Amino acid sequence: MAPAAETRMTGVVAATFTPLTPEGEINLSVIGPYIDYLIEKQNVKSIFVNGTTGESVSLSLAERKALAEDWCHKAKGKMDQVIVHVGCMCLRDSQELACHAAQIGADGIAVISPSFFKPSTAAFLREVASAAPTLPFYYYHLPAMTGVNGNYVLNDIEELVPSFRGIKFSGCDLMDFGQCVSKSRPHWAVVYGVDEQLLAGLAMGANGAVGSTYNYVGSYMNKLMTAFENGDQLQARAIQVFSLLLLLFQLMSDVSGLSLGPPRLPLVQCPQDYAKSIFQKYNSLFQDSR
Amino acid sequence: MAPAAETRMTGVVAATFTPLTPEGEINLSVIGPYIDYLIEKQNVKSIFVNGTTGESVSLSLAERKALAEDWCHKAKGKMDQVIVHVGCMCLRDSQELACHAAQIGADGIAVISPSFFKPSTAAFLREVASAAPTLPFYYYHLPAMTGVNGNYVLNDIEELVPSFRGIKFSGCDLMDFGQCVSKSRPHWAVVYGVDEQLLAGLAMGANGAVGSTYNYVGSYMNKLMTAFENGDQLQARAIQVFSLLLLLFQLMSDVSGLSLGPPRLPLVQCPQDYAKSIFQKYNSLFQDSR
Amino acid sequence: MAPAAETRMTGVVAATFTPLTPEGEINLSVIGPYIDYLIEKQNVKSIFVNGTTGESVSLSLAERKALAEDWCHKAKGKMDQVIVHVGCMCLRDSQELACHAAQIGADGIAVISPSFFKPSTAAFLREVASAAPTLPFYYYHLPAMTGVNGNYVLNDIEELVPSFRGIKFSGCDLMDFGQCVSKSRPHWAVVYGVDEQLLAGLAMGANGAVGSTYNYVGSYMNKLMTAFENGDQLQARAIQVFSLLLLLFQLMSDVSGLSLGPPRLPLVQCPQDYAKSIFQKYNSLFQDSR
Amino acid sequence: MAPAAETRMTGVVAATFTPLTPEGEINLSVIGPYIDYLIEKQNVKSIFVNGTTGESVSLSLAERKALAEDWCHKAKGKMDQVIVHVGCMCLRDSQELACHAAQIGADGIAVISPSFFKPSTAAFLREVASAAPTLPFYYYHLPAMTGVNGNYVLNDIEELVPSFRGIKFSGCDLMDFGQCVSKSRPHWAVVYGVDEQLLAGLAMGANGAVGSTYNYVGSYMNKLMTAFENGDQLQARAIQVFSLLLLLFQLMSDVSGLSLGPPRLPLVQCPQDYAKSIFQKYNSLFQDSR
Repeated sequence: MAPAAETRMTGVVAATFTPLTPEGEINLSVIGPYIDYLIEKQNVKSIFVNGTTGESVSLSLAERKALAEDWCHKAKGKMDQVIVHVGCMCLRDSQELACHAAQIGADGIAVISPSFFKPSTAAFLREVASAAPTLPFYYYHLPAMTGVNGNYVLNDIEELVPSFRGIKFSGCDLMDFGQCVSKSRPHWAVVYGVDEQLLAGLAMGANGAVGSTYNYVGSYMNKLMTAFENGDQLQARAIQVFSLLLLLFQLMSDVSGLSLGPPRLPLVQCPQDYAKSIFQKYNSLFQDSR
Repeated sequence: MAPAAETRMTGVVAATFTPLTPEGEINLSVIGPYIDYLIEKQNVKSIFVNGTTGESVSLSLAERKALAEDWCHKAKGKMDQVIVHVGCMCLRDSQELACHAAQIGADGIAVISPSFFKPSTAAFLREVASAAPTLPFYYYHLPAMTGVNGNYVLNDIEELVPSFRGIKFSGCDLMDFGQCVSKSRPHWAVVYGVDEQLLAGLAMGANGAVGSTYNYVGSYMNKLMTAFENGDQLQARAIQVFSLLLLLFQLMSDVSGLSLGPPRLPLVQCPQDYAKSIFQKYNSLFQDSR
Repeated sequence: MAPAAETRMTGVVAATFTPLTPEGEINLSVIGPYIDYLIEKQNVKSIFVNGTTGESVSLSLAERKALAEDWCHKAKGKMDQVIVHVGCMCLRDSQELACHAAQIGADGIAVISPSFFKPSTAAFLREVASAAPTLPFYYYHLPAMTGVNGNYVLNDIEELVPSFRGIKFSGCDLMDFGQCVSKSRPHWAVVYGVDEQLLAGLAMGANGAVGSTYNYVGSYMNKLMTAFENGDQLQARAIQVFSLLLLLFQLMSDVSGLSLGPPRLPLVQCPQDYAKSIFQKYNSLFQDSR
Repeated sequence: MAPAAETRMTGVVAATFTPLTPEGEINLSVIGPYIDYLIEKQNVKSIFVNGTTGESVSLSLAERKALAEDWCHKAKGKMDQVIVHVGCMCLRDSQELACHAAQIGADGIAVISPSFFKPSTAAFLREVASAAPTLPFYYYHLPAMTGVNGNYVLNDIEELVPSFRGIKFSGCDLMDFGQCVSKSRPHWAVVYGVDEQLLAGLAMGANGAVGSTYNYVGSYMNKLMTAFENGDQLQARAIQVFSLLLLLFQLMSDVSGLSLGPPRLPLVQCPQDYAKSIFQKYNSLFQDSR
């Protein structure tokens, strides 16, 4: 039984950060306020959980499950879509997470190509998807990490993965993205994942956007998408160009007032002074978004 | 004396191929008909001579001068802009070509960053430009070959190069391109050079397009630009997506009927069968453009 | 309490393959015969378990533990050194495996730098080592996967990691390796891990060799090391050059007669014909090693 | 008429710097003293002229000819081998330089693969060599610049280039180098070109060394080669490891007392303080070499 065709990721989707306590444990108590913040302040109603920015590779399986479950539970009835990223280097771990995502009521799952060994991306995706056949399945394309080309994966993908419902394309090669668009089916999500050049992705045919900066500039990106759809290129470009000035790490805590804690090793916190200067720049640009 | 501010590259600009005789000598006799073809069949009125596709690195200085001179002479009064690329690994060679371009009446010069040694692109550009200070000067950005970032070169560039008039950006990093756009001055050309994703470049703020496929799909790309300006995204995307199917080598002779001859070593001709199949694909897509 | 200084990896060390059943489950029943084969046929008395070739990234934590325990248990009293690789993307997983390695009596642990996020390799190593402070600790350097430079990691490493005992250097940059050698302490193992150019590693100062081809050409590599130590360069080079002709996958089952099963996704088996041709080449080169 | 088989590059060969006046013109007056310095102070009797370190890509053809002629003329009767590098991006330029090298009495020519366009290295080499068929011809392999693999070029190379006499291998992939060694003929030079890991190259079978640091540490590298040949690995490694501490630019003027002038754009001079600190390090290491 494959998922219904009309269900899919769309619009502006925030790739969530993982809240940790000061001691480095996952901090589920922040998730409720986090969801409220996204809805109320950023007008963002879909989330992508345990992705790259969520540091999923630095989390244990038990932690990933606990986070996924809490996001799904607390977002229920409030958000449109909760997509859980279940990609791992180890196929069995991915399958375990996919199965778990189905049990906790996720709206879809996404899988990145393994980035250590990588000969057979499509077969890997098939095996993960088969562990949760009723969930919409998205391929998460991140070539800077995986070295895998995007559009080839889409060839005959629905035969291999009946639950396939789209691609999160987080790469700069828009020619490759253009070919993904031309190979896509009407019921797929073809969402673009490089925040700093979303406008280019829209021009090439993206029907949604997933990114971690949307945690704190989601409301602006909604405006960018609206301007683009209305043919107001100047307005769209103005929003895009000034969002180029932004960098992301540690900004979410400052902007939202949520206490998200430190990153995990091997990631380290950026220097206080730098974080402060970025927050000041953010405030000077987006004074009304807090 | 710097060039007048209002002169610049704009619209669809064809990066020319270099016509050779079957024996491999440059073949000036083709240039007249080539110009007529571009104007009459492709509605292309600006050219970029001796660039990458023109195999300038495989030409001697004497050959580059002869070609530049002939293109300038024969295009005079017919075309809007003839930009001569004068970049070389050797600064003195570039200066000699820049000086020559001024003498033969070129409308502007462009310089690629040296790709063998590369620590100081901006100083190199300054020295070339100083050999032809009255000509509009364009930086030719081709990071796949040079490994140089685009937008940093633009910092304070007009202080270093008073004749600076813009950038031909032939890279896929549209975040970098977006920063070039935001650093650009109103009298600059900010032209995009990756044909297969021109639409993305336009969305990010390009005000022109330079490319070698425009030799044979220039008329379509003019339509794409018009559709984009009119806010007809669907039409623009339709043209872009089907131009994705096209590859370029050896197609120009087949499409135009001009006899452009073989490439030069180290480039070699593509197999006959392959060239034929591409030509057939071209014909099936663009039946009315011959 | 740090480990005794005199204990370390040395000589020819085989990086083990992971035996699977035809159904893809780990197959512990092969490990006993595997150990006997290495000792009796290849004169190899040290092993590196759950490394890259052992597909550790494709194994669950439970599987890695079961394998490590079985190798340690069965090699006890027979082999000189059993080094368990405990590197993971997730620090806590690595710590769990390090702690487990100490419990099962491993002779040392090794850790690769995380290859997805990678800003702080040294801090990551410190935290893993602290979970098993009595075990000799080796840094596993594999820059093709991790993009991390080798010799910088060694700066003041013993202050950070008191149990540090050496580096498995699996990279081609011998200038970097030379600097590792010159920064090394007498009680460290500085073992080279690119089998096809071991001789070059020895010349630069390696005091051991770790590699997966040593599963089936270990006896020859012992001869190469002896020849090198005796100053017989011609003999050493002759062995090295003909081992250049060898490629590895699926050869171990054919050569040893052990039934090692298929690899795991995303890896796939190489075509039968190719595996057969490599086996024939092996037999023609190493007729006496079976 | 191909060159005699017994003539070839061998031993320690210095890749020369190009002397410039303070104004940036080539300075032939330094070449005589330069040759004397190499012979008397460094025991170096073969040179490689107009190579990478000689900034040949930043020289005009006329300058390359003037330099080649002067080196050949002044080294005659004093040095064993003067090899002139004649590689250019433009085949005709390379042919012109090859022809000129034969006229001025060079002992051999070398050609790097074109690094801008690069599909057909072997055909390019053939065409250059055919312009000077009586001169020993060497392929100059520099993969960091050209991206071309070394050993494949050697397949059937003597059929294509009858005057082929060897390879200057300036890459870190010693597996590739090992295959070059195993494909080489007894009358070829297989010289290694990464100074900092020469010892590794010798272990893999190099029969000579070409490098720019040999301008000022040539006498030491002669000792390293002798130690290696005598089986004194510890001595050889001691020399190699301490030469790892050295970097090269601008050091030659300081060490030799010759006035070599500045580099050319796009290269720029390194800061005075840094040059001074390197010179001091050099002096502390090599006190007796001035």
